Amino acid sequence: MPNQEQLLVLLDDQVGCCAPLVREPLSPAQAVDLSRAFKALGDPVRLRLLSLIASHPGGEACVCDVSAAFDLTGPTISHHLRVLREAGLITGERRGTWVYYRAETAALRQLSAVLVPDETPASGISAPLD
Amino acid sequence: MPNQEQLLVLLDDQVGCCAPLVREPLSPAQAVDLSRAFKALGDPVRLRLLSLIASHPGGEACVCDVSAAFDLTGPTISHHLRVLREAGLITGERRGTWVYYRAETAALRQLSAVLVPDETPASGISAPLD
Repeated sequence: MPNQEQLLVLLDDQVGCCAPLVREPLSPAQAVDLSRAFKALGDPVRLRLLSLIASHPGGEACVCDVSAAFDLTGPTISHHLRVLREAGLITGERRGTWVYYRAETAALRQLSAVLVPDETPASGISAPLD
Repeated sequence: MPNQEQLLVLLDDQVGCCAPLVREPLSPAQAVDLSRAFKALGDPVRLRLLSLIASHPGGEACVCDVSAAFDLTGPTISHHLRVLREAGLITGERRGTWVYYRAETAALRQLSAVLVPDETPASGISAPLD
């Protein structure tokens, strides 16, 4: 995990997007981009899908790997996967019968870094909520 | 919807709430709690409001400090502030005429920590969000 300083330097490299929101206000354009991703995360099924994919051995999973965790139809799961994909949070690659999904770690890191309270030591990232 | 205090108690009660989602799948209950906060962030006006409050000198701001940044009516801004507050992302304290809002850094840290892809090399950060 990058430390806080590395994270900030790396973020600065991204033209325009985005310093931690405790440091400076987001521009309207930044807010529109980021809100799309947060909106996609604003659903418990999609959050669980993303966590099931991201934490799956090998870092990828197909619908066949995750659907047993839900009492939902295939089309409903596919809909939620499409929302995650369109928000840039996962990518999918077809191999044979199945599409294998991976979390977009760069996007997750971006969202995480925008939310991190500026004054928090890097070690605090993994600390439980106090 | 639980208020901030209830939310913090609930999160404290959930041992391991929450490990980064790349490490282990979220439970359904964790996903419900977290999705409320992410849903509140899934709107560009609310993201900008939160960043204006969090980055304001002294770490707090009233509607009088932030409303000039928006071409929105007072009631609309108040609505968005209420959503942020109910999601546990800001707190408000009335002092005289105005309510002064602060970002809930514990909640931001929690959300940031859930998203951080902890096993990923930092170099991946330069990829664009979309």
